[in-house]
Amino acid sequence: MASKTPVGFIGLGNMGNPMAKNLVKHGYPVIAYDVFPEACKEFQDLGAQVTDSPADVAERADRIITMLPSSPNAKEVYTGANGILKKVKKGSLLIDSSTIDPAVSKELAKAVEKMGAVFMDAPVSGGVGAARAGNLTFMVGGVEQEFDAAKELLTCMGSNVVYCGEVGTGQAAKICNNMLLAISMIGTAETMNLGIRLGLDPKLLAKILNMSSGRCWSSDTYNPVPGVMEGVPSANNYQGGFGTTLMAKDLGLAQISATNTKTPVPLGSQAHQIYRMMCAKGYALKDFSAVFQFLREEETL
Amino acid sequence: MASKTPVGFIGLGNMGNPMAKNLVKHGYPVIAYDVFPEACKEFQDLGAQVTDSPADVAERADRIITMLPSSPNAKEVYTGANGILKKVKKGSLLIDSSTIDPAVSKELAKAVEKMGAVFMDAPVSGGVGAARAGNLTFMVGGVEQEFDAAKELLTCMGSNVVYCGEVGTGQAAKICNNMLLAISMIGTAETMNLGIRLGLDPKLLAKILNMSSGRCWSSDTYNPVPGVMEGVPSANNYQGGFGTTLMAKDLGLAQISATNTKTPVPLGSQAHQIYRMMCAKGYALKDFSAVFQFLREEETL
Amino acid sequence: MASKTPVGFIGLGNMGNPMAKNLVKHGYPVIAYDVFPEACKEFQDLGAQVTDSPADVAERADRIITMLPSSPNAKEVYTGANGILKKVKKGSLLIDSSTIDPAVSKELAKAVEKMGAVFMDAPVSGGVGAARAGNLTFMVGGVEQEFDAAKELLTCMGSNVVYCGEVGTGQAAKICNNMLLAISMIGTAETMNLGIRLGLDPKLLAKILNMSSGRCWSSDTYNPVPGVMEGVPSANNYQGGFGTTLMAKDLGLAQISATNTKTPVPLGSQAHQIYRMMCAKGYALKDFSAVFQFLREEETL
Amino acid sequence: MASKTPVGFIGLGNMGNPMAKNLVKHGYPVIAYDVFPEACKEFQDLGAQVTDSPADVAERADRIITMLPSSPNAKEVYTGANGILKKVKKGSLLIDSSTIDPAVSKELAKAVEKMGAVFMDAPVSGGVGAARAGNLTFMVGGVEQEFDAAKELLTCMGSNVVYCGEVGTGQAAKICNNMLLAISMIGTAETMNLGIRLGLDPKLLAKILNMSSGRCWSSDTYNPVPGVMEGVPSANNYQGGFGTTLMAKDLGLAQISATNTKTPVPLGSQAHQIYRMMCAKGYALKDFSAVFQFLREEETL
Repeated sequence: MASKTPVGFIGLGNMGNPMAKNLVKHGYPVIAYDVFPEACKEFQDLGAQVTDSPADVAERADRIITMLPSSPNAKEVYTGANGILKKVKKGSLLIDSSTIDPAVSKELAKAVEKMGAVFMDAPVSGGVGAARAGNLTFMVGGVEQEFDAAKELLTCMGSNVVYCGEVGTGQAAKICNNMLLAISMIGTAETMNLGIRLGLDPKLLAKILNMSSGRCWSSDTYNPVPGVMEGVPSANNYQGGFGTTLMAKDLGLAQISATNTKTPVPLGSQAHQIYRMMCAKGYALKDFSAVFQFLREEETL
Repeated sequence: MASKTPVGFIGLGNMGNPMAKNLVKHGYPVIAYDVFPEACKEFQDLGAQVTDSPADVAERADRIITMLPSSPNAKEVYTGANGILKKVKKGSLLIDSSTIDPAVSKELAKAVEKMGAVFMDAPVSGGVGAARAGNLTFMVGGVEQEFDAAKELLTCMGSNVVYCGEVGTGQAAKICNNMLLAISMIGTAETMNLGIRLGLDPKLLAKILNMSSGRCWSSDTYNPVPGVMEGVPSANNYQGGFGTTLMAKDLGLAQISATNTKTPVPLGSQAHQIYRMMCAKGYALKDFSAVFQFLREEETL
Repeated sequence: MASKTPVGFIGLGNMGNPMAKNLVKHGYPVIAYDVFPEACKEFQDLGAQVTDSPADVAERADRIITMLPSSPNAKEVYTGANGILKKVKKGSLLIDSSTIDPAVSKELAKAVEKMGAVFMDAPVSGGVGAARAGNLTFMVGGVEQEFDAAKELLTCMGSNVVYCGEVGTGQAAKICNNMLLAISMIGTAETMNLGIRLGLDPKLLAKILNMSSGRCWSSDTYNPVPGVMEGVPSANNYQGGFGTTLMAKDLGLAQISATNTKTPVPLGSQAHQIYRMMCAKGYALKDFSAVFQFLREEETL
Repeated sequence: MASKTPVGFIGLGNMGNPMAKNLVKHGYPVIAYDVFPEACKEFQDLGAQVTDSPADVAERADRIITMLPSSPNAKEVYTGANGILKKVKKGSLLIDSSTIDPAVSKELAKAVEKMGAVFMDAPVSGGVGAARAGNLTFMVGGVEQEFDAAKELLTCMGSNVVYCGEVGTGQAAKICNNMLLAISMIGTAETMNLGIRLGLDPKLLAKILNMSSGRCWSSDTYNPVPGVMEGVPSANNYQGGFGTTLMAKDLGLAQISATNTKTPVPLGSQAHQIYRMMCAKGYALKDFSAVFQFLREEETL
């Protein structure tokens, strides 16, 4: 195990922290960096080398994973004044697991290629829990012959690593899934609410939908109505799960991608607006299935 | 078999015709009526008694099934000048399989109760094919103790008979399912379209969605993108299936129910508008999954 | 003045009360009825005759004005067990100033015609203040040769009486205006909010819009942003004005009319949903321009 | 006149061509560049100097106007390999009249400032006709003390030059106006369509709206219904005017700005989708008021 070559890891936040730990567990020497030095401390104790900049990471590791909150952060880490590209070695493999605009992934890939290195986008699905348990799903875009090399690292952190196509398609797959998820969730919430107001028992209605053509993951696995299922956020006052503010972020990326490709997304666009309004009305940190609560309140005079 | 008591059947259109035939096959003497006399001729040849009005049907049969295209038709057949209620016998069981506004079902139920008879709403899902094959699903609303009597007849025409609650809940369940179906279908169509424009292979994208949280009946069983699945309308130029104009009708009923109960249905409302625009743009008779085609066309200058 | 023939008035609520008083002021003997007897007391003191039912009003007056909160109320007052039609005299003129579904207006007109009387729909715009001041606008639908007779009465209560066409078009005009108003108001609110977040001064932005193609009544006469104009509800914490719950009601009527005529109204439909959500979020009694407040809140984590 | 100092002009397309000609008419020596050499030829004949790159323009003129189709073009012209910034002189005044993302305007302003020059965004409203007639409206963002210098040039091309605030607010004002315009136009189109289907005469309905709270520029100055007004695109089969594809572009910019500032724009977002669908359905080159035609078509089976 000790003979494994080091892996760089940049971005040790809520998601990056448990992901990097899983690399350590699998015996990889980790070269760590985070813009907040405190985030690195824990890794120092675990034997990781902590560096002063993304450039320093690139100097010491030729395989690097980045996990950052937004497109501007990713640009800074790759192409900034102390960015990876300042010192990246030829032939290095750079894997970005951030969820960002696929157009930005393509830009970064071009810049990386110019330096003779390889870039892949590999955003994840599954939240902090899956990151800890090491069973994230990775959706990977990039040159196909490098996929095996990427997979070797990603399987330390996830149970499912899917090749999606050229650079940017990992992001595209994630954005697409989450857009359809948001639409189905809002649709399920408003349908359940309408059914209840028309006199249907919510459990019975869920059962009917789930054996019919209205069935979807939001109705049969993650039902947003309290009392219909156990072990889901709706059974726990919408705590835990996938936060409304994160869903709003992903829907914003979908909007930008759709705008740039001139693709009509009438319901995706409306779903974005609804999650945006929810954020403004105090739901930012609740699970995104709280849209049921947002829509159901009785009118009061 | 000959000893079975007669069953009235009013409304022998695309759906009513094969449904009534299945009653005949099960040995029920059928007392038939349709506003278009030609529609009855076939049943005369099958040995059914053909009558001149709904009232006449009510005089000769104490179990009646109605299958009509809209709320005004249903009102006319029950409460019109020659309607069922003019001659209905006490204790009769009247089952309405039309898809109509649940508020109208409740009105009819009240009028029927005043005459000492019983009314149940029992709309169907599954189109003409399921009607012929006798495997429709019936969603039934009404007094629970009468459900067994209704089920005896309905199982001759359907494979699935679900009790939903008090009068109107059969309609409510159907409307709710179809609203969520429309939302998921449009969502699937725009998601697939966006993914394709972002460089994803449609089959691969469908596979990713179907193993993720974006999964829904429209993505895994009835995918709207040509080439992704076989045996669905999208594989056959959107012929057959469930027509856009019928979906628009059901979404209109959902809108009216939501308006009357002051229920916010932001995506259901938008789905209604999209199917309405499709009807105006020549898609009325195509399967409702043709929304993919409606949204995907390239812009041309 | 004393020689004027009596006028019936049914529905003495927030709007009906000041309207009927203006008839009294103009010297008309008023025959009054309201479902809540207390509502009539004040009119007794003013010398009006108070009756026990709409039928009684019809017995004593051959010109009647009705001002009721909803379609079911209007149906009851005209066609109910003690309704106007039980005792209406031939040649009577019945004017309904309620805001209801135009399809219901047409139904009532048919029933009234059968009795040999005349029905006109004449909904108003302008709220309680305009009702008191006698400067409401009436939009009138019905047979054109009766318009002058209607106008004689309506000018006692309004400053503007517009003939719109056959029965139902008064309702249609009102519903159409309010739908476009709601769309423009929400549009103005979201535009002002976006501009402010992009660094524009709200007063300057309003000025630019008002001299450009974005100009509308909601931007130049009733701006929803506090501080931009004086003497409007936004300058007074959205008190007074036209309540959100009333706007939601009118948008519901627009939806039902659009559904019944198969007319696509994508933004009208979304506007309905937004006012519906506002009602559920505590804005029911605020002026409808409070949509600016509903949309603007900052996201808080 | 001959003593006037030269003005650079980059981007001689549909709009830039007549704008630059108006500078020539006012006696300014023009230093011209366009990516398509043919576009410059006409200016050579008019006595302008034609250059090989934006950098060359910057070398010869210290006041430059740019008029480009999109954000990427603007970035290239300013910061590209042969861009303005390669040779810009200290103290130069660079005015960008392109309609682009205000965030990009801010980026460009920063880069320009670093070189010791001044950047202002000054997008226009009014189409090719107004550009020819020299009565465009300019909405200007940038440092206030430079506004007079900019205004001197812009008044040669426009009749209305409005100072909006810091850099980016010119774009913001334009985007905001056009978003509200699109919302009002679609709203007017669907309202007129609904009114017509409910039996109202379109001219009468327009008159009622225009004297009521539904009044907006789209109803009273640019009515989308053929036969209501003369001299507008709806009177001429929607030819001329402001193309649907241009409106879709501006709405895309509004979406991106709203997404980046987390501003809910529910109707603006839906308006974007509708113009996007119209582009895909063959309306790209028609005036944006053709949305009436898009929505009104009768359903045909």
